[in-house]
Amino acid sequence: MSKKVAIIMGSDSDLPIVKGAITTLKGFGITIEVHVMSAHRTPEQVSAFACTARSNDFGVIIAAAGKAAHLAGVIAAHTTLPVIGIPCTSTSLEGLDALLSTVQMPKGIPVATVAIDGADNAGILAAQILSISDEKVAEKLEKMKKNMVKEILEKDERLQTEIWWKM
Amino acid sequence: MSKKVAIIMGSDSDLPIVKGAITTLKGFGITIEVHVMSAHRTPEQVSAFACTARSNDFGVIIAAAGKAAHLAGVIAAHTTLPVIGIPCTSTSLEGLDALLSTVQMPKGIPVATVAIDGADNAGILAAQILSISDEKVAEKLEKMKKNMVKEILEKDERLQTEIWWKM
Amino acid sequence: MSKKVAIIMGSDSDLPIVKGAITTLKGFGITIEVHVMSAHRTPEQVSAFACTARSNDFGVIIAAAGKAAHLAGVIAAHTTLPVIGIPCTSTSLEGLDALLSTVQMPKGIPVATVAIDGADNAGILAAQILSISDEKVAEKLEKMKKNMVKEILEKDERLQTEIWWKM
Amino acid sequence: MSKKVAIIMGSDSDLPIVKGAITTLKGFGITIEVHVMSAHRTPEQVSAFACTARSNDFGVIIAAAGKAAHLAGVIAAHTTLPVIGIPCTSTSLEGLDALLSTVQMPKGIPVATVAIDGADNAGILAAQILSISDEKVAEKLEKMKKNMVKEILEKDERLQTEIWWKM
Amino acid sequence: MSKKVAIIMGSDSDLPIVKGAITTLKGFGITIEVHVMSAHRTPEQVSAFACTARSNDFGVIIAAAGKAAHLAGVIAAHTTLPVIGIPCTSTSLEGLDALLSTVQMPKGIPVATVAIDGADNAGILAAQILSISDEKVAEKLEKMKKNMVKEILEKDERLQTEIWWKM
Amino acid sequence: MSKKVAIIMGSDSDLPIVKGAITTLKGFGITIEVHVMSAHRTPEQVSAFACTARSNDFGVIIAAAGKAAHLAGVIAAHTTLPVIGIPCTSTSLEGLDALLSTVQMPKGIPVATVAIDGADNAGILAAQILSISDEKVAEKLEKMKKNMVKEILEKDERLQTEIWWKM
Amino acid sequence: MSKKVAIIMGSDSDLPIVKGAITTLKGFGITIEVHVMSAHRTPEQVSAFACTARSNDFGVIIAAAGKAAHLAGVIAAHTTLPVIGIPCTSTSLEGLDALLSTVQMPKGIPVATVAIDGADNAGILAAQILSISDEKVAEKLEKMKKNMVKEILEKDERLQTEIWWKM
Amino acid sequence: MSKKVAIIMGSDSDLPIVKGAITTLKGFGITIEVHVMSAHRTPEQVSAFACTARSNDFGVIIAAAGKAAHLAGVIAAHTTLPVIGIPCTSTSLEGLDALLSTVQMPKGIPVATVAIDGADNAGILAAQILSISDEKVAEKLEKMKKNMVKEILEKDERLQTEIWWKM
Repeated sequence: MSKKVAIIMGSDSDLPIVKGAITTLKGFGITIEVHVMSAHRTPEQVSAFACTARSNDFGVIIAAAGKAAHLAGVIAAHTTLPVIGIPCTSTSLEGLDALLSTVQMPKGIPVATVAIDGADNAGILAAQILSISDEKVAEKLEKMKKNMVKEILEKDERLQTEIWWKM
Repeated sequence: MSKKVAIIMGSDSDLPIVKGAITTLKGFGITIEVHVMSAHRTPEQVSAFACTARSNDFGVIIAAAGKAAHLAGVIAAHTTLPVIGIPCTSTSLEGLDALLSTVQMPKGIPVATVAIDGADNAGILAAQILSISDEKVAEKLEKMKKNMVKEILEKDERLQTEIWWKM
Repeated sequence: MSKKVAIIMGSDSDLPIVKGAITTLKGFGITIEVHVMSAHRTPEQVSAFACTARSNDFGVIIAAAGKAAHLAGVIAAHTTLPVIGIPCTSTSLEGLDALLSTVQMPKGIPVATVAIDGADNAGILAAQILSISDEKVAEKLEKMKKNMVKEILEKDERLQTEIWWKM
Repeated sequence: MSKKVAIIMGSDSDLPIVKGAITTLKGFGITIEVHVMSAHRTPEQVSAFACTARSNDFGVIIAAAGKAAHLAGVIAAHTTLPVIGIPCTSTSLEGLDALLSTVQMPKGIPVATVAIDGADNAGILAAQILSISDEKVAEKLEKMKKNMVKEILEKDERLQTEIWWKM
Repeated sequence: MSKKVAIIMGSDSDLPIVKGAITTLKGFGITIEVHVMSAHRTPEQVSAFACTARSNDFGVIIAAAGKAAHLAGVIAAHTTLPVIGIPCTSTSLEGLDALLSTVQMPKGIPVATVAIDGADNAGILAAQILSISDEKVAEKLEKMKKNMVKEILEKDERLQTEIWWKM
Repeated sequence: MSKKVAIIMGSDSDLPIVKGAITTLKGFGITIEVHVMSAHRTPEQVSAFACTARSNDFGVIIAAAGKAAHLAGVIAAHTTLPVIGIPCTSTSLEGLDALLSTVQMPKGIPVATVAIDGADNAGILAAQILSISDEKVAEKLEKMKKNMVKEILEKDERLQTEIWWKM
Repeated sequence: MSKKVAIIMGSDSDLPIVKGAITTLKGFGITIEVHVMSAHRTPEQVSAFACTARSNDFGVIIAAAGKAAHLAGVIAAHTTLPVIGIPCTSTSLEGLDALLSTVQMPKGIPVATVAIDGADNAGILAAQILSISDEKVAEKLEKMKKNMVKEILEKDERLQTEIWWKM
Repeated sequence: MSKKVAIIMGSDSDLPIVKGAITTLKGFGITIEVHVMSAHRTPEQVSAFACTARSNDFGVIIAAAGKAAHLAGVIAAHTTLPVIGIPCTSTSLEGLDALLSTVQMPKGIPVATVAIDGADNAGILAAQILSISDEKVAEKLEKMKKNMVKEILEKDERLQTEIWWKM
C-alpha cells in the first residue's frame, strides 16, 4: 500500500490555497494528513512531526507558507523524506519573498519548490513521487494527463465554432 | 532494485554545474544516465526520451537549463514521472529568468525546482524520492545527514580554539 | 495573396487579452486562425501545428501565454517562421515571469517578444512582417499611423480649449 | 531579390554584441547596412533613416541599445517596417533597464524584442521575416535548424563515451 | 519676468496624474502650457516643440509617460533646457518600466527624474529651477516649505490630544 | 555672473564616480565647490550647508550617495534650491537600492535624479538649469550638443569604411 | 523602571499601519510616545527629538515611513539608541523602495529593520530590547510566546475535527 | 556587568563577513561567543543554543546566513531575546534572497535586520541595545559617533586642499 502524504501549512490563513493540494491528493486516492504548524511559532511541533514522519509511514511532506517562508526548509532539516514547498502570496511582495525563501536552500537540504500558490501542482508532484512504486497512482496520473489533453482539444474545437472572430 | 535517474542538460556548457548532481547520485549508488538535449534545438529527442522514460525504468528526471529555461517543463509535459528542474545562471540576469521559467509551471504539470545552480540538491532530492521504496538509499541519506551534523560540529569546535577572536 | 497568421493561446483564459490581436489583424484584412493549445498539456498538437505551419501557408505565428510561458518558445523550436510572443499577466508576479520566459530564448531560436499583454502590438507586428511582400498591408499600416497622429493632434487641440488649467 | 536589413547601434561600444547579428545575416547571404546612430545624440539622423527605410528597400531594421534603450522605439515611431530590438547590457542593472525600455512599447508601435544581448537571434529573426517571401532564405533557415540538431546529437554522443561519469 | 514651463504628457490617460504638476505650478504663479504629444505616435510634433522651446521662452519642460517611457528622453534629445521626467504607472509592472526608461539616460542627455507618478514634485522642481533667477518664486517656495512644517506640527499636536493611544 | 554649483558626496569612496560631474562643470566654466559630507555621519554639517546654500550664492546642489542613499533627500529637506541626486553603485544590489532611495521622494521635497553613477549627466543637468538665466552656459550647451552629433557622425562614417562586415 | 519607547511616523497616513506597534507595546505595559514627524518636511523636529531621546529616558525609537523612507536613518544619525525601522507600503512599488531605503544603511549607523508594514513585530522587538534589563517585560514576552503556541495547537486541533478533508 | 552577545554563522564561509561584527563588539569591550551552526544542517544545536541563551546570560544574538537565510528566524523562534539578522551575499542573486528570507518574518517573531553583509552595523546595533542599561557602552557609542564626524571632517578638509578640481 502507498505511503501517506502530509500537508502542513504555516498559518490557517493559507488554507484556501492549500485546498488545491488536498483535493488533488484525495482524487488520487492517497491518504493524507493535514496540519497547521508554524516554523516560527511552534517549532517543537514541526521538528517532532518531521523527525518521525518516515517511521509514521509518510512518503512525502508538503509545506505551504508565505513571507519569509521557512516552513519547508525547517521540515527538510529534520527528515530525509522529499519535502515539497508551496510559496504563498501573503505580503505586498506578492510571493517573491516566499519563493526565494523556499527555493534557495543550501547544499544538503533540498526543497522541491512549485509555483507561487501552486498547491494543485504540489499535490500532483507528491502523487508522481509515490507513483514510482505504486502502479495504481501511476495509472491515475496517466489518466489525468489524457483528460487534460481532451479538455483542451474540446476548448479548441468550441473556439472553432465561434463566429465572431471568423467574420 | 532501485529505478534509474536521468540527468538532462540543455547545453553542454551546463556540465560544470550539473556535475554536482552526477557525483551526488553516484555516491548513493544510484544508476544514472546523462544527456545533452535541448527543448528548443532538439525537441524531438526530448519528447521521445521523456515519453519512454518510465517504461525504460527511470524513476526521476533531472533537467538543467538556463535563460528561458523550458527544458524541465517540456520534459514534464511528456511524462508523469517526477521532474526536478535546476535553473542555471547563464545570462546577465543571473538565473532569475531561469528560476521563474522553471518554477512558475501551470496547473497540471509540476516541476520540482531546486535553487539556482543547485545541482547537488537536485541529486539529493532524487535520492530522497527513490528512498521511499528503497531502504538502502534511505539509510545512505540518514548517514549523509549525520555526516553533515558532524562536519559542522567539528568546524564549530575548531572555531572555539581560535585565539584571535577571544583575546 | 498574403500569408495567414496563426494566433495560439496557452489557455482559453487568455482570450480577453488575445482579442486585441484578432481585431487588429482582421482590421488589416489578414486571414487568421485562432487556437487554444498548451505547450505543457497538449505538446503533440503544438508541435504538429508548428511543423506544418509554413506548408499550410502561414507567414507568422503569434503565441500568448502566462506564468512559465513556454508556448512561443516551443512553437519556435518546431518552425522557421517568425514567432511573436505575448507574455500574459496571470500570476501574482504580474507578467514578469512570462516576459522573461518568453524573451530570454537561447541562441538559435528567437521569439519576437512584445509588451506584457501587448496583443494589439503583436497583431500590428505580424502585419508589418507581412507588409514586406504585400503592398496593400503596407498601405493600411501607413494609414493607421496617420490616424494615430491625427487622433493625438485632436486630443491636444481639445486640451487647449479646456479652461480649467488656463485660468 | 530579398530586401536589405539595417543594423543600427546606439553606440559603437555595442559593436562586440552587434557582431553576432552581422555574421548571422551575412551567413544567410542577406544584404545588410550597419550604422552608429543615437536616438538621443543624433535624433535627426535616426528619423531620417527610419522614414526612408522602406523606400530604400529595407525589409527589417535591427536596433541595439543599452540603458534607457529608446533607439528601437524611436525608429519604430518613424516607419511601418518591422523593427527588432536588442536590449544591451551596459549598466550595473545588467540589461533589465534596456529590456523594459525596449519591450514595453505602447499600443500602436511594436518592437520585436529578443533576449538581452541576443544579437544572433536578432539576425535569425530578421532572416525568418524575410523568408516568408524568399524561398532561398527559408531553405537556409531549415538547414541551420538541422545543423543545430546534428551538433547537439554529436555532443550527446561524445558525452556517452566519457568514462568519468559512468564508473 | 519668469520663463514658462511646458507640461507634455504621452497620452491623455496620464492627465489625472499630471494635474498635480499643473496645480502646483499655477499656485506659484508660473505660466504653463500643457500638451498631449507622443514620442512614438507624434514624433514630429515632439521634436518640433522641443527644438523651439528655448526660443519660445520656456525655461523647463516636464514630460510624463508610462511603459517604455521615451518621451522625456526624446524631448531632451532636441533641447538643452532642463527636462523633468515623471514615470507613470500604467502597466502591470507598476511604473518600474517607466522609471528605468526615464532615469537611465545615456551620457550627454540627462533627464531630471522624479518619483513614479510624482507630478507634484515635478512642479515644485520646475519652480525651484526657475527660482534661481526669480526672487518671487524663491519666496513662494520658502513659504510653501514653512507651510509644510506648520501642517505637520499641527498634525502632531492633534495626535497628542487623542486619548485612545494614551490610555 | 552665474551661480555656483555644490557637489556633495556621502563618502570619499564615491570620488571616482563624482569626478565626471566635476570635469563637466569645469568644462562649462562654472564655479564649483566639492565636499565630503554624510547624511548619517555628519548630519549637522549637511543641514548647515544646505540651509545657507542659496544665500551663499549656490544655484544647484549635486549629491552623490550609495546604499540607502539619503544624502540628496536630506539636503533637499533643508533648501529650496534644485537638488540633483546621483545614485551610486556601492553594494551587491548594484545601485537599485540607491536609485529607489533617491528618486522615490515624498510630495513636497523633489530630488532631480539622474542615472545610476550618472555623474556626467548630473553636471550637464546643473549647467542646463543655470543656462536659463546665463546665456554663455546656454551657448556652451548648444556647442556640446553639436559636438556629440559630429562625434557620432564620424564614428558612423568610419564604420562605413570598415571592410570586414561588407565582404 | 523600564525606559520609554518612541513611535515616530513620517506621515499621519501611516497611522493605520503603526497602530499595531502602539497596541503591542501598550499590551506589554511599556510607556510610549507617538509623533508625526517627517525627515524631509520637519527635519529640525526630527533631529531635536532624536538628539535628546536618550536623556529624555527613551530606550528605543521606532520609525515608520514609506517611499524613499529616510526617517529611521535620519533618526539613527542623531542618536546612539537602537532605532527600529518599519518600511511602509505607500507606492506602486509595494514597499520595496521603503525596505531598501530603510535596511541598506551605511557602516556606522544601523537601523533594525522589520518586515514591510511589520508594526506588530516592531513593537515586540522593542519589548525584547527592553526585556534585557526588565524582568517583567521578559516574563510577558515568554507568556506571549506560549500563547502563540497554544493558539496554533488549538487551530490544528480544530482542523483535525473538520470532516471535509477526511472523507 | 553587561550581557554577552552571541554571533552565530550558518556556514564558516560567512566568517570573512562576520568578522566585522566580532571586531566591533570587542572594540566596545563586550563579551562575545562565536559559533558555526546551521538552521538546516544542525537544527538541534541551534534550538538548544537559542532556548538557553537568556539564562546563559546572553543579551543579544546575531545570526548571519545567506541564500534562503532561515538562521535568524529559527533562532528567534526559540528565544525572546532580540535577534539581529545579517543577510549574506552567497548566491548569484547577490543577497536579495537572504534579505527577504531574513526580514519578512511573520507576526510574533521579529528579526532586527541590518544591511546585506552589514556585520559592522550588526555589532553596533547589539552595542546600542546593551547601552540602554550599560552606561559604559553608551559612552563608547557616543565616542564612536564623534570619531565618525571627525573622520569625515578631516576627509573634507583634505579634499579642499587638493588642487586638481580647483584649477
